[in-house]
Amino acid sequence: VGLGLIGGSLGLDLLAQGHDVRALVHREATARRARERRLAGTVSTDPEVLEGCRLVVLALPLDRLLAPDPALLAALPPTAVVTDVGSVKGPVLMCWEPLLGERFVAGHPMAGTAAAGVEAGQRGLFRGRPWVATPGRHTDPQALEAVRVLAETVGARWLCCGAAAHDRAVALISHLPVLVGAALLRTADHGALAAAGAGGEDLPALVRALASSGFADTTRVGGGNPDLGTLMARGNRQALRQALACYRGELEALELLVEREDWQALREALAASARLRPQFLGGS
Amino acid sequence: VGLGLIGGSLGLDLLAQGHDVRALVHREATARRARERRLAGTVSTDPEVLEGCRLVVLALPLDRLLAPDPALLAALPPTAVVTDVGSVKGPVLMCWEPLLGERFVAGHPMAGTAAAGVEAGQRGLFRGRPWVATPGRHTDPQALEAVRVLAETVGARWLCCGAAAHDRAVALISHLPVLVGAALLRTADHGALAAAGAGGEDLPALVRALASSGFADTTRVGGGNPDLGTLMARGNRQALRQALACYRGELEALELLVEREDWQALREALAASARLRPQFLGGS
Repeated sequence: VGLGLIGGSLGLDLLAQGHDVRALVHREATARRARERRLAGTVSTDPEVLEGCRLVVLALPLDRLLAPDPALLAALPPTAVVTDVGSVKGPVLMCWEPLLGERFVAGHPMAGTAAAGVEAGQRGLFRGRPWVATPGRHTDPQALEAVRVLAETVGARWLCCGAAAHDRAVALISHLPVLVGAALLRTADHGALAAAGAGGEDLPALVRALASSGFADTTRVGGGNPDLGTLMARGNRQALRQALACYRGELEALELLVEREDWQALREALAASARLRPQFLGGS
Repeated sequence: VGLGLIGGSLGLDLLAQGHDVRALVHREATARRARERRLAGTVSTDPEVLEGCRLVVLALPLDRLLAPDPALLAALPPTAVVTDVGSVKGPVLMCWEPLLGERFVAGHPMAGTAAAGVEAGQRGLFRGRPWVATPGRHTDPQALEAVRVLAETVGARWLCCGAAAHDRAVALISHLPVLVGAALLRTADHGALAAAGAGGEDLPALVRALASSGFADTTRVGGGNPDLGTLMARGNRQALRQALACYRGELEALELLVEREDWQALREALAASARLRPQFLGGS
């Protein structure tokens, strides 16, 4: 259900392996383009296309996933395993477990790119990337197993954890970096404007001319898709607020070292950060 | 003077173009390795190697640049144009203009990589990258011109601006991102540890397993060389403090939107950041 980046990529990989792949999309124009791109064997805007499916992947944006269309709910085959790909898991479980019970498996394939929409799907997107499942207490082990097989079929690394732990983790490593990078872009712009007023030189032009690949890297996710960033913040606001509070404390600690001109302590803090970073590179 | 990343790369490019390149280094072991790598035509630990040079490039770390060795000062040819490559310009001018007057040209080739030392020099490092000069009121136009020719000889983009404007600009786009990224690494570590105590699951392992290329990008400069980061913060502490204060304000503004659950305003702020980012990608 949905043929954006995740749904389209999944369709391409599964179709290439000879699976029967049927897709439900919202708009006829999307269906036409998806057929041209051969993202699925059958593409329709009619929910009845799901009839007979044994495994349904809800590859919808988080807002539509959390407010499911009644026509979609009515068309879900009564014994199918249903899984999703949303980037926040607590609210998804809260919405879907009451609806489907033990045959719903909350999942999160972590394979984002900046691309979105029917043009975004690509072969091999999931290869080597984490695919996290957050089973609830009532999740059917066989349903979970079906989703694991799906994830490993497209080459993903399978992981299970609790929904709350997942949401806290992605707040720290995925949702917080969006705001951190966005604030940095705003600072480069506003800080240059403010100083330009005082100095006289064209600082806004200078910061743009001098920004290097380091600045580009630091702000990549912060300058990403604003709809996605907003949906993630909205869906995970509690964990994100905790992460922001923690981040504020860490930044203030570094700032204090600069204020105090305690260069030895600053060097130690930066060295500790440099030692930390390789620990976070395994999954990328 | 110095055959690290900048000095070594400069030597390789100039030597390849047939220029007479002589290098002064601190240690005999460095000199031996530099000769093996052919980073310069003549490499010596004796300051007399500079005799007769018409253009001297001080390619030293910022701390050594700001506390020049008396033997180096004594060996600088009396009419040579002298330039530096330090990443902060105000303190460099303050130190070197009184020593050399109009024949000193403060410069900053912006071509950093994570590498450092005698192994780091590489061909073509400066191609297409900014090389900023910050002439003072007394700088000899002919001396400035000599450094411009040097920069363009190795393919750099030549830029001139005031030292204060340069230092404010690099605080915003180069020094601030170091602290922003370092704080993010500390948050991912500490935030996961704190939540692990409360939750029971192994959140520190989970954040490491789930961190994606987005997290890697956002933290690349924050997990970089701690000596370099500390020297830059130390050399540019005033502009860095202003940048930090501005950043704190921008982040708090975004945080407030999350607190208020004002998703429309958050979306607009993220969209504005997304529109800003391409303006900062020209130089990289």
